[in-house]
Amino acid sequence: MNPVQNILSDMECYLDNSATTAVDEEAAALMGELMTKGYGNPSSLHNIGFEAQKKLDEAAKGLSKILKCRENELIFTSGGTESNNTAIIGSYLANTRREKHIITTAIEHPSVRRPADFLETLGCRVDILGVDANGHIDLDELKSLLRPDTLLVSIMHVNNETGAVQPIAEAGKIIKEVSEGCIFHVDDVQGFGKLRLIPKEAGVDLLSVSAHKLHGPKGSGLLYARSGVRLSPIIFGGGQQGGKRSGTENVPGAAGLSFCAKKLYADLDGNLEKLQKLRSVLLNGLEGLEGISVNGGDAPYIISLTVQDVRAEVLLHALEQNGIYVSAGSACSSHKKNSVSPTLMAMGLSEKDASSTIRISTCCKNTEEEMLYTAEVMKKEIKNLRRFVQR
Amino acid sequence: MNPVQNILSDMECYLDNSATTAVDEEAAALMGELMTKGYGNPSSLHNIGFEAQKKLDEAAKGLSKILKCRENELIFTSGGTESNNTAIIGSYLANTRREKHIITTAIEHPSVRRPADFLETLGCRVDILGVDANGHIDLDELKSLLRPDTLLVSIMHVNNETGAVQPIAEAGKIIKEVSEGCIFHVDDVQGFGKLRLIPKEAGVDLLSVSAHKLHGPKGSGLLYARSGVRLSPIIFGGGQQGGKRSGTENVPGAAGLSFCAKKLYADLDGNLEKLQKLRSVLLNGLEGLEGISVNGGDAPYIISLTVQDVRAEVLLHALEQNGIYVSAGSACSSHKKNSVSPTLMAMGLSEKDASSTIRISTCCKNTEEEMLYTAEVMKKEIKNLRRFVQR
Repeated sequence: MNPVQNILSDMECYLDNSATTAVDEEAAALMGELMTKGYGNPSSLHNIGFEAQKKLDEAAKGLSKILKCRENELIFTSGGTESNNTAIIGSYLANTRREKHIITTAIEHPSVRRPADFLETLGCRVDILGVDANGHIDLDELKSLLRPDTLLVSIMHVNNETGAVQPIAEAGKIIKEVSEGCIFHVDDVQGFGKLRLIPKEAGVDLLSVSAHKLHGPKGSGLLYARSGVRLSPIIFGGGQQGGKRSGTENVPGAAGLSFCAKKLYADLDGNLEKLQKLRSVLLNGLEGLEGISVNGGDAPYIISLTVQDVRAEVLLHALEQNGIYVSAGSACSSHKKNSVSPTLMAMGLSEKDASSTIRISTCCKNTEEEMLYTAEVMKKEIKNLRRFVQR
Repeated sequence: MNPVQNILSDMECYLDNSATTAVDEEAAALMGELMTKGYGNPSSLHNIGFEAQKKLDEAAKGLSKILKCRENELIFTSGGTESNNTAIIGSYLANTRREKHIITTAIEHPSVRRPADFLETLGCRVDILGVDANGHIDLDELKSLLRPDTLLVSIMHVNNETGAVQPIAEAGKIIKEVSEGCIFHVDDVQGFGKLRLIPKEAGVDLLSVSAHKLHGPKGSGLLYARSGVRLSPIIFGGGQQGGKRSGTENVPGAAGLSFCAKKLYADLDGNLEKLQKLRSVLLNGLEGLEGISVNGGDAPYIISLTVQDVRAEVLLHALEQNGIYVSAGSACSSHKKNSVSPTLMAMGLSEKDASSTIRISTCCKNTEEEMLYTAEVMKKEIKNLRRFVQR
């Protein structure tokens, strides 16, 4: 037995934080309190309702400070997927007089790509920006595709599979130069809470956030929508949230999101430094192992590794036997075990390499010890698995 | 001072349970556990993901037993509003070949009515069934409006403002007689957990449920969709829940809903008896008070009272001073203080009477003592408020 494993055999390393995170204990306690005690309906006209509305307002206030926007520019949603759908379908519904033309990228999350596909069935033209080997879009291509009357551009901030970071502010500048009225949407589900992106400073009109990627609860998300941007709701009803998203507000969910975001932004630089360190420890630990390569990787907390001659699922399960939890591609496409990542293919990987790629995604609760352990186990398991490969 | 108030001055009576409920303590604890420990993403291919999927499956299993359906006929949503929107807009999107004709009622919740309005803007014809003085639809009117190719009929089970219960099974029979392919949707947000309605037995194809109306969490709902019914998603993405509703599943929310539903259905008849008793105690306690009338009221837990010569908001605040929390109309239309209830108007109330109507909505945690107290306070406050009325 490997001595490291011997020592650390009870270790559990959750390294799938881009799929979802453990909810912060304090946030969970706050939510429990709001569920059982501060349970009012914000729309009720009595004090129990007002108290709930106050909690909702506080949640919005905290988030508005982080995003440097007004509170009424924030829409609480059921998660990143709803935020992305609202941005894309809602823009289309509200702007029928602009050209039915949207631009997005080859590496978007399905919750951007599928709504765009849906709009295509309604007669909308969808142009797709390619990416280079590092997973970056080409701003000249963006410029060439933009028309004066383009409805919407949707570009993700941090790619969920590779951590590639797109030049959002530069893209925003180009978009607004060509067309002041073009809506710029950014899926910031993998960036918010870890990197700094201020929508107004980057020319971003719509920005999507998910709570459960940053130690907040599942079922809670946010859509920043710049005041003045024309956006239709996609969920209609009682007119809550200024008519932008109907349905009784998930007060505990909003409070949990806000709490976690504030906690992370209180020491964003320190967190990022720690995540950089974790990455270095892992990659240094893997030194000497041949036939592995890193894809993308601007954001330190998402490490995409192609491991030659080892199928991702097989490695995933071998690591799991050692208490290490990672992902094969992203977890966001439900149980599609055998589908090959469009993101990795767009970066030029072969189908074989894309199928041999795992994602290790960290959070600040991970430790250097865990990284050392993971590197040791990976070296051992990869060597072992490769023994059975037919070349 | 009134002797009752004297004795019970510290009493807090939350009688706005149709707006929202306090989350069950055990359900909240279960959710806390799933947030901080069983936090996996059900789509992840490792054990932490599988465990989360198992919790989701268990939640579906519990609910499927109650609704006597298959687990894959259940879609977890972010709440009743999303369930209703999915039913109505999703039916429209999936059935473009049927006649663009839907039928609904004059007393629906805005989360049914507004999506129907939205479809009208897309060229859909929407017929509205009226109601009688008791808030009941006319089955002959339904029959006369149905066409062989009608797309959808949406009728709520229990009205949120009056407790009027519609003849769902009879309506289902009529609908299926005219057109086997017509989709029958029932908004059961105010009935599920309190009354028994088995979709398949009543010819219901789609049925909406909300968790926070039955001591479950906000941000969690359910849509029963009969196997074989053609329904498009309205939120697109990673293909979770068999592609019917994308987005990482809110596992704690689903588990909380299932837990609370099981608890309520374990003694549905006992609960109903208790709610009947609470209603009787309140109404008996109000005997002798003139100029009040009950609207609708089939479901005992929703008591709509028109109080002549007293504006609902004024009475609401007078009761609040005594620790009693009720609603003026429904809480579901956010802060629209001065809008008059379309439901009450459809039942034939004058605008003045509709503006003088409060809703008292109970749950099994309320007590007879609270009802006695509320009746005493109401008598005192109504007499007092009426002294200032100009006749």
